[in-house]
Amino acid sequence: MTYCVGLMVDEGIVLLSDTRTNAGLDNISTYKKMFIFEEPGERVIVVLTAGSLSTTQTVIGKLEEAYHDPDATPQSSFMHAATLLQSVEIIGNMLSEVTIEISEKLNRMQQGGATASFIVAGQRKGGVPKMFLIYPEGNFIEATNDTPFLQIGEHKYGKPILDRVIEASTTLDDARKAALLSMDSTLRSNLSVGMPLDMAIIKKDDCKISSLQRIEAGDPVFSAMSEAWSIALRDSFKAMK
Amino acid sequence: MTYCVGLMVDEGIVLLSDTRTNAGLDNISTYKKMFIFEEPGERVIVVLTAGSLSTTQTVIGKLEEAYHDPDATPQSSFMHAATLLQSVEIIGNMLSEVTIEISEKLNRMQQGGATASFIVAGQRKGGVPKMFLIYPEGNFIEATNDTPFLQIGEHKYGKPILDRVIEASTTLDDARKAALLSMDSTLRSNLSVGMPLDMAIIKKDDCKISSLQRIEAGDPVFSAMSEAWSIALRDSFKAMK
Repeated sequence: MTYCVGLMVDEGIVLLSDTRTNAGLDNISTYKKMFIFEEPGERVIVVLTAGSLSTTQTVIGKLEEAYHDPDATPQSSFMHAATLLQSVEIIGNMLSEVTIEISEKLNRMQQGGATASFIVAGQRKGGVPKMFLIYPEGNFIEATNDTPFLQIGEHKYGKPILDRVIEASTTLDDARKAALLSMDSTLRSNLSVGMPLDMAIIKKDDCKISSLQRIEAGDPVFSAMSEAWSIALRDSFKAMK
Repeated sequence: MTYCVGLMVDEGIVLLSDTRTNAGLDNISTYKKMFIFEEPGERVIVVLTAGSLSTTQTVIGKLEEAYHDPDATPQSSFMHAATLLQSVEIIGNMLSEVTIEISEKLNRMQQGGATASFIVAGQRKGGVPKMFLIYPEGNFIEATNDTPFLQIGEHKYGKPILDRVIEASTTLDDARKAALLSMDSTLRSNLSVGMPLDMAIIKKDDCKISSLQRIEAGDPVFSAMSEAWSIALRDSFKAMK
C-alpha cells in the first residue's frame, strides 16, 4: 500500500508520500510516488500516486511525454492548460482511460484491481494554490478551507492527528510537522507503508517547489521528532485522569 | 460500521464497543454490540460483534438459546464447555454456519456481504482470562502478552494510540483510559461509529463482569476526557520542534 497526504493552508501546500510498493508481503520495493512538473515561477504541479503501480506508472509516463511534447497545446497538455482545474481534468481523464485499458487486460486474465488514485496540487502564475484528489474513475474533489487536507492510500491511521490540528490558518511549518506525525503514526501501525519519504513544500505564490526533501530511514531529525511525539503522547496519557 | 476493542492486561480485560449500525448513510440505528453471558464467580463470557447485523443477531440469538437450554451439554453449549478455548470453537463454528446460510440466501438474490467478526473474552473459574478474535470463516486468533489488544470494525483510526501505550503490564485503569481514547479518535474521524458506548471490565479471577457502563452521548466524564486529550495533543504538537 501507500500513504500520501497533502495539506493546503493559507501559506501554501505541504505534500508527503512514502515509497513502499508491494506485490504481496514478500515482494517489497521502493518506488517514488511523488512526481513534480514545474516551470519555476510560472507553474508547478505535483502528483502523488496510490494504487496499482502499472496504472500509476503508465499515467505518469504519459504525463511526462505530454510535458516534453513540443507540439503540446493548452487543450492536450496538463502543463499548458489555462487553469489548474483544467490540468486536473486532463489528468483525471488520462487516469480513467489507463485504468480501463489495464483493467480490461487483467479481466481477460481473471485478475482484478488496477485502480489508482492521485493527489494533484500546485499553482500557476496569476492563479491561487489548489489541491485535488482524483479517484480511479477520473472524477475529483478539491481541498477547501473547511477540508484543508487530502489523503490517499492507508489514510485512516494518520487521520486523527490531522482532524485535530489542521486548519486553513495553520502555519506552513506546523502543517509540515503535522504531515510528518500523520505519516509517523501510519508507519508505526501499518507494515505496507515504509521509508524513505518524499516531502515537497510549495509556498503560496512561489509557483515552484520551495523545498524538496527525501527523508531516509534513520534520518536523525525525523527519528527525534517521532521519539519526541511518542514521549509527549505517553506523558499526556499518563497525565490524564 | 462499528468499532469494538478489547484489551487484555495482567490485571484483567477491558471491552468497549460503539452502538451505531447503518444500512447506507441515511439509515442509522442504535444496536448493542456487546453481549454478556455470566454465572458470576463461575464463568463470564463477553461477545463483541461487528459486521452484518442479520448475521450477528442470528448468532447471538442462537447463543442465548443455548445459554438457556436446560439440556445443554459441554459439547453443545459454549457456556458449559470445559475451557474458554472450546467455547470459542463452538461460537466460531456457529458464526461460520450462520454466515454461510445467510450468504447463500443473499447470493441467490445477487446481494453480497453477510460477514461478521467477533471478539470473545472472559474467564472461567480455574482458568485464566482469555480473549479471542473470531473471523467470519469461524477461525480465530488469541490475544497474547505480545499482542494484548484486539479490534474489529473500523480499527485503524484508534490503533496508533494503542500501539503506543498498551502492554501486558499496563494497569487496568490505564487500559480503560486507552480504550476510551482509541474510541474517541475513531468517533472523531469516522461517522459510521457512534455513541452511546458500552464498556465492560473483567478483573482477573473475578469470573464475572466487575463493572459495566453505558456511556451516553454528552456524558460529562467522557466529554471532559475527550476534550482534555484534544488539548493535551494540541499542546504536545505546539511544543514540538
